[in-house]
Amino acid sequence: MKKMKRLALGLALGVCFSAFGVVTADRADAAGQARKVIVDDDGFGIAQWLLLQSPDVDVLGVAVVSGDFWRDEGVAQALRGLELAHRTDVPVLKGAVYPLLNSEKLTDRWEALYGKLVWKGAWMKRWVEPTAQAAPPYHAADVVPDLPEGNPTTKASGEPAVLFMIRKVHEFPGQVTIIATGPMTDLALAQRLDPSFAGLARELVYMGGSLNPQRVRNDLDAVQFAREFSNSPRREFNFRFDPEAASIVLRAPWRRIVAIPADPSTATELTPEFLRRLAAANPAFADVLKKRAPGFPLWDEIAAAVWLDPKLITKSEELYVDVNSQFGAGYGDTLSWQPGYQPDLDEQKETVVRTVDVRGLEQKIVDILSRRVPPAK
Amino acid sequence: MKKMKRLALGLALGVCFSAFGVVTADRADAAGQARKVIVDDDGFGIAQWLLLQSPDVDVLGVAVVSGDFWRDEGVAQALRGLELAHRTDVPVLKGAVYPLLNSEKLTDRWEALYGKLVWKGAWMKRWVEPTAQAAPPYHAADVVPDLPEGNPTTKASGEPAVLFMIRKVHEFPGQVTIIATGPMTDLALAQRLDPSFAGLARELVYMGGSLNPQRVRNDLDAVQFAREFSNSPRREFNFRFDPEAASIVLRAPWRRIVAIPADPSTATELTPEFLRRLAAANPAFADVLKKRAPGFPLWDEIAAAVWLDPKLITKSEELYVDVNSQFGAGYGDTLSWQPGYQPDLDEQKETVVRTVDVRGLEQKIVDILSRRVPPAK
Repeated sequence: MKKMKRLALGLALGVCFSAFGVVTADRADAAGQARKVIVDDDGFGIAQWLLLQSPDVDVLGVAVVSGDFWRDEGVAQALRGLELAHRTDVPVLKGAVYPLLNSEKLTDRWEALYGKLVWKGAWMKRWVEPTAQAAPPYHAADVVPDLPEGNPTTKASGEPAVLFMIRKVHEFPGQVTIIATGPMTDLALAQRLDPSFAGLARELVYMGGSLNPQRVRNDLDAVQFAREFSNSPRREFNFRFDPEAASIVLRAPWRRIVAIPADPSTATELTPEFLRRLAAANPAFADVLKKRAPGFPLWDEIAAAVWLDPKLITKSEELYVDVNSQFGAGYGDTLSWQPGYQPDLDEQKETVVRTVDVRGLEQKIVDILSRRVPPAK
Repeated sequence: MKKMKRLALGLALGVCFSAFGVVTADRADAAGQARKVIVDDDGFGIAQWLLLQSPDVDVLGVAVVSGDFWRDEGVAQALRGLELAHRTDVPVLKGAVYPLLNSEKLTDRWEALYGKLVWKGAWMKRWVEPTAQAAPPYHAADVVPDLPEGNPTTKASGEPAVLFMIRKVHEFPGQVTIIATGPMTDLALAQRLDPSFAGLARELVYMGGSLNPQRVRNDLDAVQFAREFSNSPRREFNFRFDPEAASIVLRAPWRRIVAIPADPSTATELTPEFLRRLAAANPAFADVLKKRAPGFPLWDEIAAAVWLDPKLITKSEELYVDVNSQFGAGYGDTLSWQPGYQPDLDEQKETVVRTVDVRGLEQKIVDILSRRVPPAK
């Protein structure tokens, strides 16, 4: 009961106190001309550090939603990640715990009808096949296991992520970029709570969806990650975890949408060598990066990097995109159309990134992570 | 832009100011032992007056969601309804403008595939057949036509309905009944924004769904209203307008759910004679009731009345209920199971009202509406 009361108070006071911070924030922005961004992710990693370490970027907040991890575990990761970056001035905002309609039970039934998913995030119990990546620890939504990078001592904001995002786009109309690299539950809630939300943001940059990824690399990890698209080229985890939310968000009237589907990521990899290079770049992040499992494609890092530097995009196209929200074999699959072919059910034209400059991307990540973190507070 | 800023401020300050009202509200309740209720509806009518006029009931707020009317028109109705009842002390809260995934465009496509809906609420342009009830005025979401009962001079609260409801169930855990007589968009948003929402309420009482209604009355209106179920016994407007929201809400962990489907309403009717009886009962409501179109079944009034006096229920059963959220011929249809047959995807056991004491119901409505309204403020 105590916990519940705290939540209620947070709901009321979080929004309340923040309202009085408007003037200060406005002033800082006018001086610095920094690009304002809110990250909404199902964890915390290099992508967030890239944004935090970039000199012309004002990270207004780090929102966390369930996906790869349950929200509360992602919140712990975000808090710890900000502590390591000496950026505890940036608030961590709690997002949605559960997707709109999808659930672990429903996913079990779906798999019994249509076959096993390669990756299920917080609902993952074991890999179907032997896999280089460790079996993720399966636990309840409110359990937060000890983090390999150490547990945080700071706390999340009492203001819910959805309300924070709505408040910020009203405070800075046309100026706030939302970088969404997890399931889109929070953004869908924000749009339905406030129909002006999407139109008030500057743009949406998201990692999600899958068009027709091709395996580019030949190492074991790349071969194993190809399981995710080799027989299901239109399936990608962020969309698949909350298909209805993704469909709501992609049909909202954003001024601009930049999509980073799985496709450009197949040419990238967090190899042991690249991880060592990153660990050597900055003592602040070295310990964590040394412990990090290698092999993952640079999904979210591409999203952050191409927003920081669009020149890293080597090929993109304009497409209308939606998500299949029908509970059948194609539940959560990406739907896309060349302009003119879309059904016109409010789908939006998106700039879809198809390939990126991989060496340029890696160099960009090294350069930004190398920047000295601010003094500890 | 001005309008947007006002909304943002409302979002922040509405929640803020309300937080300081906690103590007062608590005190009033301890003294009066009134049953606390929040109504969430797509309009305003006799049902709300029943709750407002009942001596042992504390109507914490009147929330309005789009459905029969767009939200803003419903808000105007609610404000005017409270003014007439001299209950402008009760806040009117703005709910969701749009359903989660359903839309007017999608409904047009659905009708082109599966046939015409009898009633489409805010999206209704004309009746398919000649109908006793007037053709509803079709207009954009942000247009508020002049109300036949006169336009309100009071204003809605700046706190969004969803946040108000979350705040109130935390403030009075286990004490707040939610009576939902419109689409369930607001309640779905509340549940996904705060997973403890449903469990903190006392109960959910809703008008929605349709099991197997039979026409009982022989007048023209009853014959015409039977169009809604004669070839589609599982279709009902509140579920059909936002099927995904209804499915989220009916699978949330409420302590108790009482369902009033279309079924008991077929024995009831707002006849010209009954309307005259009501108009004669109280001068405060007489003018409005004289102008009201007769012929409607007493859908929402049953929900309010059986909550006030469960003895009016003559037959009910315990069923598990969900809503078909698949976009096909059965989109929005009611799904129900005798205990043991439910798929166990978090459906909840509900007390489903099958028949009511019609004469008792009418008398109850007359008795309560007859009570003198408080002095004007």
